[in-house]
Amino acid sequence: MFDSVLVVNRGEIAVRVVQACHELGVEAVAVYSDTDESAKHVRRADRAMHVGPSTASKSYLDQDAIFEAAHEAGVDAIHPGYGFLAENAGFARRVEEEGFVWVGPSGDAMEALGEKTNARRLMAEADVPIVPGTDAVTEPEAVEAFADEHGYPVAIKADGGGGGRGLVVVEGPDEVEEALTSAIREGEAYFDNPAVYVEKYLESPRHIEVQVLADGHGNVRHLGERDCSMQRRQQKLIEETPSPSLTDAEREEVCEAARRGLAEAGYESAGTVEFLYEDGEFYFLEVNTRIQVEHTVTEAVTGVDLVAWQLRIAAGEPLDFPQSAVDPVGAAMEFRINAEDPAEEFRPMPGTLAKYAPPRGIGVRVDDGVDQDDSVSPFYDSMFAKFVVVAPDRETLVRRARRALREADIEGVPTTIPFHLAVLHDETFLGNEHTTKYVDEVFEFDEEAV
Amino acid sequence: MFDSVLVVNRGEIAVRVVQACHELGVEAVAVYSDTDESAKHVRRADRAMHVGPSTASKSYLDQDAIFEAAHEAGVDAIHPGYGFLAENAGFARRVEEEGFVWVGPSGDAMEALGEKTNARRLMAEADVPIVPGTDAVTEPEAVEAFADEHGYPVAIKADGGGGGRGLVVVEGPDEVEEALTSAIREGEAYFDNPAVYVEKYLESPRHIEVQVLADGHGNVRHLGERDCSMQRRQQKLIEETPSPSLTDAEREEVCEAARRGLAEAGYESAGTVEFLYEDGEFYFLEVNTRIQVEHTVTEAVTGVDLVAWQLRIAAGEPLDFPQSAVDPVGAAMEFRINAEDPAEEFRPMPGTLAKYAPPRGIGVRVDDGVDQDDSVSPFYDSMFAKFVVVAPDRETLVRRARRALREADIEGVPTTIPFHLAVLHDETFLGNEHTTKYVDEVFEFDEEAV
Repeated sequence: MFDSVLVVNRGEIAVRVVQACHELGVEAVAVYSDTDESAKHVRRADRAMHVGPSTASKSYLDQDAIFEAAHEAGVDAIHPGYGFLAENAGFARRVEEEGFVWVGPSGDAMEALGEKTNARRLMAEADVPIVPGTDAVTEPEAVEAFADEHGYPVAIKADGGGGGRGLVVVEGPDEVEEALTSAIREGEAYFDNPAVYVEKYLESPRHIEVQVLADGHGNVRHLGERDCSMQRRQQKLIEETPSPSLTDAEREEVCEAARRGLAEAGYESAGTVEFLYEDGEFYFLEVNTRIQVEHTVTEAVTGVDLVAWQLRIAAGEPLDFPQSAVDPVGAAMEFRINAEDPAEEFRPMPGTLAKYAPPRGIGVRVDDGVDQDDSVSPFYDSMFAKFVVVAPDRETLVRRARRALREADIEGVPTTIPFHLAVLHDETFLGNEHTTKYVDEVFEFDEEAV
Repeated sequence: MFDSVLVVNRGEIAVRVVQACHELGVEAVAVYSDTDESAKHVRRADRAMHVGPSTASKSYLDQDAIFEAAHEAGVDAIHPGYGFLAENAGFARRVEEEGFVWVGPSGDAMEALGEKTNARRLMAEADVPIVPGTDAVTEPEAVEAFADEHGYPVAIKADGGGGGRGLVVVEGPDEVEEALTSAIREGEAYFDNPAVYVEKYLESPRHIEVQVLADGHGNVRHLGERDCSMQRRQQKLIEETPSPSLTDAEREEVCEAARRGLAEAGYESAGTVEFLYEDGEFYFLEVNTRIQVEHTVTEAVTGVDLVAWQLRIAAGEPLDFPQSAVDPVGAAMEFRINAEDPAEEFRPMPGTLAKYAPPRGIGVRVDDGVDQDDSVSPFYDSMFAKFVVVAPDRETLVRRARRALREADIEGVPTTIPFHLAVLHDETFLGNEHTTKYVDEVFEFDEEAV
């Protein structure tokens, strides 16, 4: 195991990595910007290195400053957390070039899986289900032929598009011609590229993702799935495991597909394979080549310490458990606690925590980047804590989560807690009828109702 | 289920019961003394009733005041927590007489199991192993005959004795005559009763106890054992499960004996059967007819909510799981966090918590009766928090527990944390070589060593 690790992050995930280091007997060295000089991740670390001013691009994202700190601190390895430099393949390569161990997959693996079309190809080769689609089309007949095979609606997508632009949804045959013309025109206008292709369009998908651990000795294990369908503008708000939408056979199918996909890709470290799920079918979305915010729910039901395994794998240790030993018990949900006002379009509201007493007691885990009297900084993400609740089953879990969220005693900033409580009383969520579009299109947050 | 429950206690266990009520959708009504007017258990409860001045005998132990509060609040049931009135059979009977449901075993069961000789008889009838002993003896030959059968050392005990007085340990045959004379003399002098009897004397026992749940429908389940051998002056300091001393066969033996004993006694509610364990043999010690401080470690490895089950059983629900479904996973320890100075003979040091940031993160549960800026009162027990740590195995657990105890950030009172950290670095404890007498007779707490 390493003697010391530089934790290139801040907030709750930096605290999390420091904790994992300490449990492995490893010295944890923090980095910090001006505003974070006395932040919790600095207080918890054994040492801390200043890397620049408060603006992230000049501190937590400043590679030169970070390598200077790493060399001065004399660490063995670098853990990036999530966000910031965690999925920067160039940074990962430079970490190795400068003589440190990178706690994560290789820069090549990150790059191969980071490009969406390349990742799709890799996954398809491993028989991972992907969204059915065509090569470039120019004639309405090709669109109709695809739709006849896969059913409406379909999406005509500009090859150069992304982020919802250059995407036209076709609900039936009489819309094909106009939609094709429109998509080609959008592609030309926005991306200077008239090429378009057709894909099956998912109207009400769920978001299902699978946690995988892979070591450098050929062992690849999945740790079960997470359901992250409760989102707002593609930002996850509540994550749970197991997914209440899947049969055991579907669960086995998607977990094994994810495991196979990362095994075929020669992946090493913790990684997540994300899928959309609709009408009993899974469709590969992307691979996240880092630890995710919501890794905690997997830990809650498996007992496996994912961050410790990132470090152990990076240090060369083999995974010491067979796939059959992964036997999740119970149900868990994670609630992201952000300094935001859910009644005001989730506007970030940084400030000082005049009072901070998170929930405690049975089945409650709290990961956070603050103590009472600390501030939530306007410079960074507004998430300052995660409440993770575990119980024997989803019904008990919901009751426990309500109790935990209600007993949280936080003053000084508004939080997402009232939103979570509203969701925990919403019939659609309780009945597991929500999709990834539910919050954006249907759910109305009513502060008074909780 | 009940509409509302009166929680006749304070501190962490009152908070714990309030949490269980809330998870069951039950209104929790607190009681409080003068000094506890704004205590955490009052803040967490839905309502609170004043029951008297700070002295416990005039508030938390004042039955008339408590029944007045119960009637005024209009509650359905009364939960006593532990300590105070929890094992007072007369109080339990009066609860029912005054028209409330008692959350606990019947007054008769409490009385029958509370008398040590009666409990021994009941357990012996159920084939629960008890310490071998004689009826009254008067001649050295009877002592020698017993010792020949069971081996030295033996204890000669005054029939009227207790608390270590009227007990003489006999190491070999040449000490018998003098010891017998001495024990008879002590019995006469202290208890005005010359009758003495002989028992096998356990020199280096471990403390093993078994958690049992029994409903009113004939279902009795054990929830595994706890090892509470780390004690100081018979006060438990650290409790763990599973016991690292037992083989699986021994574990099954003692758990089944405890289950059988409480089944035969017609017991109902949560209860604990305590044993001493030495040289592969178990010896019944006593039954605790209440929830115990250390119930949390059992919850950590089984996922079973023991306090919720106390309430559900009292409301008439049957236990809904078979014995075979109880399948503990991992290892857990509880650390009692007291406002005491371990370097000064554990002298209680009440005061105000200028800073209180308990540990968080993976595998850590905190139950407490305080938030930051609250006080630990001189009127009551000095324990203000319990840190419960769970991990896949004892080695990982020890490393996680060190991390958790180190990151606790508490100012304003001295705590038992340095003592716990010293124990977590002690070779005898780590090697599981300690007995119940280890702290009193061998272990030296060295504040500097941690």
